Amino acid sequence: MSKQEPHSPVNNLTNGLDEIVHQRIRLGLLTIANEAVRVEFRFLQEAMEVTAGNLSQHIRVLEDAGLIRVTKGTEGRRPRTWVSITRAGRTALYVEISSLKALVHRVEQADASST
Amino acid sequence: MSKQEPHSPVNNLTNGLDEIVHQRIRLGLLTIANEAVRVEFRFLQEAMEVTAGNLSQHIRVLEDAGLIRVTKGTEGRRPRTWVSITRAGRTALYVEISSLKALVHRVEQADASST
Repeated sequence: MSKQEPHSPVNNLTNGLDEIVHQRIRLGLLTIANEAVRVEFRFLQEAMEVTAGNLSQHIRVLEDAGLIRVTKGTEGRRPRTWVSITRAGRTALYVEISSLKALVHRVEQADASST
Repeated sequence: MSKQEPHSPVNNLTNGLDEIVHQRIRLGLLTIANEAVRVEFRFLQEAMEVTAGNLSQHIRVLEDAGLIRVTKGTEGRRPRTWVSITRAGRTALYVEISSLKALVHRVEQADASST
């Protein structure tokens, strides 16, 4: 590294990262929900390695924002909760991914120009 | 989308995303600091479009984690605060970027297989 200042203005560098979507657990949840018609609560819990309480909180945030839909029912006699991504959720995930790609590109450019 | 369940186990999908580094403002700050020997506080504040108080809080979190170094001094007669990324900070940023790339890839794969 020989530069004294960053090489370009950086406004909006992370403005495309929405706090609701960008949070680690919620980003993982949306990523998984994006791959299926619906995903069962326990599957998500194991996939994300979080407590039920923690997962429930994040599900509520995403549901309140209209990014997922939650359905309750039973399978056999067991209560089940399913999560589906909404159209708005898919759009929000794509916006996040697009911003992340730009960020990754930027860090890799800096790395390339410093070596 | 025709699948009923996600196509693969997703353990550790977001485990590589460290909460300290992944947070939006801090991720932007590390990205910018990674591009220069040192960056001035006000430059960061304008680049990230945050209040001084908010930026100070995030700087403290990163400093406490050993990911940046903070230097205070004057330029002319004006007090200045400079931020430099540490070796540990650079490593943490690269780990985050590597995890983000895997996540981006995964979302794009799901998108490709559903169309």
